[in-house]
Amino acid sequence: MAQRRMNLLMFSGDYDKAMAGLILANSARDIDVEVTMFFAFWGLFLVRDPEKMTLEDKTLYEKLMTWMTPKGPEELPLSKMNYSGLGKWMLNEMIEDQEAPRLIHFLKGARKKNIKFYGCKLSVDIMGFKPEEFLPELEIIDAQTYLRDALESDIQLFI
Amino acid sequence: MAQRRMNLLMFSGDYDKAMAGLILANSARDIDVEVTMFFAFWGLFLVRDPEKMTLEDKTLYEKLMTWMTPKGPEELPLSKMNYSGLGKWMLNEMIEDQEAPRLIHFLKGARKKNIKFYGCKLSVDIMGFKPEEFLPELEIIDAQTYLRDALESDIQLFI
Amino acid sequence: MAQRRMNLLMFSGDYDKAMAGLILANSARDIDVEVTMFFAFWGLFLVRDPEKMTLEDKTLYEKLMTWMTPKGPEELPLSKMNYSGLGKWMLNEMIEDQEAPRLIHFLKGARKKNIKFYGCKLSVDIMGFKPEEFLPELEIIDAQTYLRDALESDIQLFI
Repeated sequence: MAQRRMNLLMFSGDYDKAMAGLILANSARDIDVEVTMFFAFWGLFLVRDPEKMTLEDKTLYEKLMTWMTPKGPEELPLSKMNYSGLGKWMLNEMIEDQEAPRLIHFLKGARKKNIKFYGCKLSVDIMGFKPEEFLPELEIIDAQTYLRDALESDIQLFI
Repeated sequence: MAQRRMNLLMFSGDYDKAMAGLILANSARDIDVEVTMFFAFWGLFLVRDPEKMTLEDKTLYEKLMTWMTPKGPEELPLSKMNYSGLGKWMLNEMIEDQEAPRLIHFLKGARKKNIKFYGCKLSVDIMGFKPEEFLPELEIIDAQTYLRDALESDIQLFI
Repeated sequence: MAQRRMNLLMFSGDYDKAMAGLILANSARDIDVEVTMFFAFWGLFLVRDPEKMTLEDKTLYEKLMTWMTPKGPEELPLSKMNYSGLGKWMLNEMIEDQEAPRLIHFLKGARKKNIKFYGCKLSVDIMGFKPEEFLPELEIIDAQTYLRDALESDIQLFI
């Protein structure tokens, strides 16, 4: 039987949608489906390395975009009921009560499970991020390369 | 010809997106496409039975999640221009002017048309909902079961 | 080899998501993929012709929907960090710094590249728009026609 594949376009940069995408990605690997995650626009905030922010060689706008936006998974807001972070804090308490993994664990899982991480070149250029500000396995590609991967996939979602 | 299938991941819990998903689901059945709807996270609010809320055996957070959130289709907010319910009220007036069905009618239609309703186990566990708080036909499944269904579908959307 | 096809359901009416959809559409045409864009609900705001608003023969609600909502691509808000337009202004400045095309250019590109533009009949009826308020190439179709197109496509996304 042909290898099954899933391609996720991670656009939103919300904590809960990042969680949904990473749960799907991890679960797909567990049933031997190949997974590609393509991070674009706000979705790039999820794959920033929180330790590697730089303001060097950036315009004022690029500095603002680097500094005022979520640096990595823990800083992403909820898409709903965020209440300045209170909603997200409560959600994480409820996750712990269930002894369920947190977002950061799903991201760690995905990084170990041979999931392909792509970043959108145009978004990276416009926001002024440097390649070294992201997780090292993130490969920066253009929209055509994303589309070729998506065309070969059995599932494509825009998250 | 093989049976065509559509799989919708209902994530958002917005009134307008619920409407979009249910219109697609009903229309697909009308042209003999099999339909699965998988409700996760905020999407679960759409398939709560408004008459069956319970606070028994719940932690404080679970009680808040049960009580402070939309109970069934009529209480869902718009994703945009909700204006504390005024926008939704106006939209519903406009729907009535057109003698078009409301969200509740699309949900009733979907329940009669042999559409498979699934709920996401992890979301249900984290939010602390009991199976009996949902529409009786909702079956609670894990992400792998969702993925197996999605892999066999001709259309998959994340709504 | 069979002709490859992509079908985008443009629901959101956000500037950034419209940009994502149009970049994908243009890129797909560049690698010879056929593209359909189906505009529904808030997504219709993107394909309004800013010069062709009319209030004639409309109810009060329809007038409000026509007048209070974004008229064409330039008026769409960002899905995040819009800050009453300041965020969008900054994003556009950053796009210009990169000499990258703006939303309006991606829309112009799409219109020249033989992309099929559909509008959702039910949304148009409910919002009370007239066919002549949209870009002339927009064809108004029902959900079943959308679904038949989506079923024949290799990629379907809900944006």
